[in-house]
Amino acid sequence: MADSSSTAINIPESKSTKSKVGHVAYAATTKAMARKGGWKRGVAIFDFILRICALVAALAATTTMGTTDQTLPFFTQFFQFQASYDDLPAFTFFVVANAIASGYLVLSLPFSIVGIVRPHAAGIKLMLLIFDILLVAFTSAAAAAAAAIVYLAHNGNSKTNWFAICQQFNDFCQRISGAVVASFIAAFIFIFLVMLSAVALRKH
Amino acid sequence: MADSSSTAINIPESKSTKSKVGHVAYAATTKAMARKGGWKRGVAIFDFILRICALVAALAATTTMGTTDQTLPFFTQFFQFQASYDDLPAFTFFVVANAIASGYLVLSLPFSIVGIVRPHAAGIKLMLLIFDILLVAFTSAAAAAAAAIVYLAHNGNSKTNWFAICQQFNDFCQRISGAVVASFIAAFIFIFLVMLSAVALRKH
Repeated sequence: MADSSSTAINIPESKSTKSKVGHVAYAATTKAMARKGGWKRGVAIFDFILRICALVAALAATTTMGTTDQTLPFFTQFFQFQASYDDLPAFTFFVVANAIASGYLVLSLPFSIVGIVRPHAAGIKLMLLIFDILLVAFTSAAAAAAAAIVYLAHNGNSKTNWFAICQQFNDFCQRISGAVVASFIAAFIFIFLVMLSAVALRKH
Repeated sequence: MADSSSTAINIPESKSTKSKVGHVAYAATTKAMARKGGWKRGVAIFDFILRICALVAALAATTTMGTTDQTLPFFTQFFQFQASYDDLPAFTFFVVANAIASGYLVLSLPFSIVGIVRPHAAGIKLMLLIFDILLVAFTSAAAAAAAAIVYLAHNGNSKTNWFAICQQFNDFCQRISGAVVASFIAAFIFIFLVMLSAVALRKH
């Protein structure tokens, strides 16, 4: 932007070359746009790759948490000891949020491809940026809520008399810890995506 | 941006008014910039007001959670029943994250004022935008982690044998619930700040 506008403003100062100045300005503008187009196309391709990485991480988090279901090999007359994600609301929120993030990422891939084909379509990028910000908040909230509960499951808390359950549900705990890590990775990729989009919008 | 560059590109087509065309282009550019400047100044003032609101919310969350400390009126020989934020790591993270958010907001106010005085200083806005994104993730993670524990404190969980502690620590629970709500408000304001900055950058 700075290139083209400064060319326009400088025109009155160089009146000696009236007939050619327009063509020079046009050529300079086109060249600058082509150069920026290449730069922006690189950013758009990187954006697409990052979205696929985030999709893998979010899907891994969703499926790991959603399918983990450990039943202990002993049971009493009334109880069978079993742990799954829907025992705790924080884990349910985690699965829903990561599933929504995965769905959004799949839907955003075509728009990201449009960004590669047409690097100057700023409207689509702004739309993606705004949704990405919501997903930053969503995925980091889900990961943090689940992490707080996972920490409690591992360590317990003596003040509140909440006991660690990971001695019994060892396999369950390992898998949900992995899911939390995957969700944090997805959140970090979202943060990076928003920063990348912001820098690309600035240079438009 | 679109105005100034299109003016520059159109020059070769109107060769009949060579001497005046530069001045016209210059005047049009200045006028467009002034109009955009007014719009951008409004956004910058709104940005400043939102930052003060977020600061109030984050400070309220920090102080409410940080100062809450309930000691029950009965005690045994070995224990005095007491609840404060540093009993639970999620609450400690909550206090630290909201304190950092408050500090960042105070530091960002002068830059926001620069944005009001000079609406076209895009570099500062981009810098604020990038830090704001980090704070979106940070405050929503803190609020969500604390909310997961507050939910547990209110409702308990029968599957994991974690009992609700809010019957005993009623005052404590009410105050930390308020702190979590304040932190969520701060997170929402941060999301809105980032969206506003993104739209303002786009129109630059």
